[in-house]
Amino acid sequence: MELLKKKIVECGKLLDGDIIKVDMFLNHQLDVCLLNEIGKEFKRLFPSDKITKILTAEASGIAVAAIAGIHFGIPVVFAKKGNPKNICKDAYTAQVYSYTKNTSHQIRVSREYLTPNDRVLIIDDFLANGQAVKGLLDITQQSGASLEGIGIVIEKGFQEGGKIIRERGINLKSLAIIDEVKDGKIIFR
Amino acid sequence: MELLKKKIVECGKLLDGDIIKVDMFLNHQLDVCLLNEIGKEFKRLFPSDKITKILTAEASGIAVAAIAGIHFGIPVVFAKKGNPKNICKDAYTAQVYSYTKNTSHQIRVSREYLTPNDRVLIIDDFLANGQAVKGLLDITQQSGASLEGIGIVIEKGFQEGGKIIRERGINLKSLAIIDEVKDGKIIFR
Repeated sequence: MELLKKKIVECGKLLDGDIIKVDMFLNHQLDVCLLNEIGKEFKRLFPSDKITKILTAEASGIAVAAIAGIHFGIPVVFAKKGNPKNICKDAYTAQVYSYTKNTSHQIRVSREYLTPNDRVLIIDDFLANGQAVKGLLDITQQSGASLEGIGIVIEKGFQEGGKIIRERGINLKSLAIIDEVKDGKIIFR
Repeated sequence: MELLKKKIVECGKLLDGDIIKVDMFLNHQLDVCLLNEIGKEFKRLFPSDKITKILTAEASGIAVAAIAGIHFGIPVVFAKKGNPKNICKDAYTAQVYSYTKNTSHQIRVSREYLTPNDRVLIIDDFLANGQAVKGLLDITQQSGASLEGIGIVIEKGFQEGGKIIRERGINLKSLAIIDEVKDGKIIFR
């Protein structure tokens, strides 16, 4: 998606250790006009009328998934960050490990909002090691819902998440894939 | 807002201790068509073209603020839940106390995204004791930005947050104010 790539080049900040900071438009301040175009693009890439739910994770996936939801005309469910100490009998839960923070947290989705009748599109802002998406896939599987695909705004192609998901035969579409950051320049796939 | 009140009556669940659970459409599963109407209504209630930023708090304010942002055509900033152990020189921070959880957490907004030139509309999903809004007001003041108003989806009129904010002369508009829950019935103002 050219508009998105342009924005990443113009506004993304390169930090140490291959970190690309996009909190100016994607995960702290939100460029809602861009997010609206991203929502439209996801609908174009996943045109099936059979999708019944969009699933994302708290917190930074919420904005992009909610706005995409308007273009799909279907409900959005966001997995909440839970407290592992709390036993949730009425929720599907999964553990998400964060490499950047070296911590693990639980995500949960109420059993009411995902059922075997649902056909799920997972949407998230970032895909790197794929731990968050792995948690959402785990929850989808627990619910008995079927998976229609995964839509990602920015994929870090130099990390393994995208490769592993595609090898599983899942319909993964990323709007921008960054293959390399070289001499302060972002190289897209 | 009649559509919202109807939804609260139809889908809200009354739990012990005056808790009205609306996670079926507002803060776990999202009825994005309703959120779109809510966004339009906020624009009608706050028509000023001078508003430059919408400010909300992670996580449950993000969806409604992001969708409202499309109707306003301006950027949305969401305060992140921070770690009080981390010193943030480049962020405004505030403490938010939660009565329901009896815990306190820090919220923060990068100094880049709120400046004295900004005119801020605060949007949030819920107003009860007003602790989250108080934190957002605190951050707005620290930034030197001016406040245009506060838009709330559901206000619990039987708790003190709304009263305190209105007494300060702030332009607070709530789309549904619940004054009482009596014999399992919700009474709106």
